Amino acid sequence: MSSDWQDPPTELQETFTLRMRGLGSRTVLFQQQVAASLGLYNNDFLAVDVLHEKGPITAGELSKLTGLTTGSVTALIDRLEKNGFVRRQPDPNDRRKVILVPLYENKQEVGDTYMPLHAAMIQLAASYSEEELMLINQFLAQASMVLENQIDRLNQARGRTST
Amino acid sequence: MSSDWQDPPTELQETFTLRMRGLGSRTVLFQQQVAASLGLYNNDFLAVDVLHEKGPITAGELSKLTGLTTGSVTALIDRLEKNGFVRRQPDPNDRRKVILVPLYENKQEVGDTYMPLHAAMIQLAASYSEEELMLINQFLAQASMVLENQIDRLNQARGRTST
Repeated sequence: MSSDWQDPPTELQETFTLRMRGLGSRTVLFQQQVAASLGLYNNDFLAVDVLHEKGPITAGELSKLTGLTTGSVTALIDRLEKNGFVRRQPDPNDRRKVILVPLYENKQEVGDTYMPLHAAMIQLAASYSEEELMLINQFLAQASMVLENQIDRLNQARGRTST
Repeated sequence: MSSDWQDPPTELQETFTLRMRGLGSRTVLFQQQVAASLGLYNNDFLAVDVLHEKGPITAGELSKLTGLTTGSVTALIDRLEKNGFVRRQPDPNDRRKVILVPLYENKQEVGDTYMPLHAAMIQLAASYSEEELMLINQFLAQASMVLENQIDRLNQARGRTST
């Protein structure tokens, strides 16, 4: 059994956390700029992004995923529906439920805003060998899982405080 | 001269952009959870993060970096100063200027919120060989630069629209 991870971090590991943090700030800034250029609130746009990734979900699920209250989510969905970013429709598997269907890719302006980023990221990916890119992809999956666990942790901590 | 990047993206490259997007959403969600658990608005917390990365800057620079209007930034700094996240002080290099000094690391609760993420990221970094981590670090710097260019592009596009 290895206890390596309890050793003091190496310089390379510290550089790694700094770079992750730098990438994180830029990601948040980029999302804010995208939201602003589409005339949306930040939370609204994030919800569009979450919907796009998770596919049709209920308002309750969206509330849980974004950490927004049910009331905020209802107002948010009203705004997004009005602007043509989502559609409310009955769940085909359970007609008593209403699900939110993202109309994301239909929005030309969203596509236009993301296209240059997508092209630049493909170009970045193309600068690596297949073997290197496999490592990077594996790393990105791992890093996502770390963040997901941390989101759950904070969610639970907030749940404990508010009950 | 290679024109590889104009080829249709490979499956590995498409996976890469999807994973980057997934990591991006989780980053934004995590930041929102952190902001919520500290009782801050999202923009406010982002500003704290930007200040921490860039070090002391003027309100004008913060406005440019966050894409917020000067008026919004003034109100934001008032809130952050009141909560002990930043301090306004005269620029030692130019006493006519006021700079914003982050008091970030002094806030025990911010540290407590980030500590588990930092530990989990160090643990993730430790799961890679030195050579692999060097590649990942190089990749993170490149990806940050791509995002920075995209933020500039959107900023400029908004500038053109509003004049």
